[in-house]
Amino acid sequence: MARWEPDADGRLKQAAMALFHERGYAEVTVAEIADRAGLTKRTFFNYFADKREVLFAGSEAYLASVVKHVAEAEAGLEPIDVAVLALTLSGLELAQYGEWARARRDLIASSTELQERDLIKNAALTSAIAEALSERQVEARTAVLAAQAAMAVFGIAYSDWVEGRSGDLPGLIQQSLADLRRAVAPN
Amino acid sequence: MARWEPDADGRLKQAAMALFHERGYAEVTVAEIADRAGLTKRTFFNYFADKREVLFAGSEAYLASVVKHVAEAEAGLEPIDVAVLALTLSGLELAQYGEWARARRDLIASSTELQERDLIKNAALTSAIAEALSERQVEARTAVLAAQAAMAVFGIAYSDWVEGRSGDLPGLIQQSLADLRRAVAPN
Repeated sequence: MARWEPDADGRLKQAAMALFHERGYAEVTVAEIADRAGLTKRTFFNYFADKREVLFAGSEAYLASVVKHVAEAEAGLEPIDVAVLALTLSGLELAQYGEWARARRDLIASSTELQERDLIKNAALTSAIAEALSERQVEARTAVLAAQAAMAVFGIAYSDWVEGRSGDLPGLIQQSLADLRRAVAPN
Repeated sequence: MARWEPDADGRLKQAAMALFHERGYAEVTVAEIADRAGLTKRTFFNYFADKREVLFAGSEAYLASVVKHVAEAEAGLEPIDVAVLALTLSGLELAQYGEWARARRDLIASSTELQERDLIKNAALTSAIAEALSERQVEARTAVLAAQAAMAVFGIAYSDWVEGRSGDLPGLIQQSLADLRRAVAPN
């Protein structure tokens, strides 16, 4: 049985971020992360499937939170508004980790491997939103298009927010939604 | 120097598709593909970086074609229309390979590894469209949103087309664009 270590999860994340920052993501091994955190490799693998997952821990909880907010949105809202609202509410839970978000964004940008993992997580989230919309009786094609549009809207707003553009996350999301509507409006 | 083999490229693709179909993508090795095509592994690697690339050969030419069509679209069109038009014109070049498209789609759906490669290729195409729109003096955020929206529109239409939904590809793309506009319209 694995020995319980107080906040092993948080210690591993902090150790990993410090090492990635010092030496670059690609150069750091799982053994080194565990060592820096004062833990074993085995403990690392109790928490994370691989080195990449340190940066994507919480993505399942995040997906579940978005899906829950889609399910709980009031009746009568348009699908795009449901999806954007769900991403806004779950995003606010993320927004308390501003420093982590910035460091994480820079790391992902530094590594093709991490960009790929990020794409995969986003695709899974998009599908989950589309499915959650379908369960609200939204027609399948509309559900997919609304989910993809909402992810595009959120992606731009989140990146504005991480980069410190003025405004809070919900405000930036609303601006980005208005931008999308203008961008796709017929001439 | 590599020995020239007539249509080695096409023979390798055909051999790969036949083997993938017979035994499943994951079970087939590069050596077996080369062998079935009557060629060597070395010849395989002259044409494809890895086994996955057999299914994504031509994606660079496709990206270049889309970018060219964005650059050449007439002045005065809205960014979303430029992006959708470019994908339509390049898509028509694809549309002659209907059988290959169907077999390829089924294979991609059968393998996480292939789905991931597909996501990565699509992300590269989305970025290239956004960049090509920026070169037409489209503002950066609008360029990204129009590129993502156009990719969503094309994705749905292409999948309808592969599945044999009635209508030609350009008609399905126009329907899908109308669906997107409805999906994001304010209440």
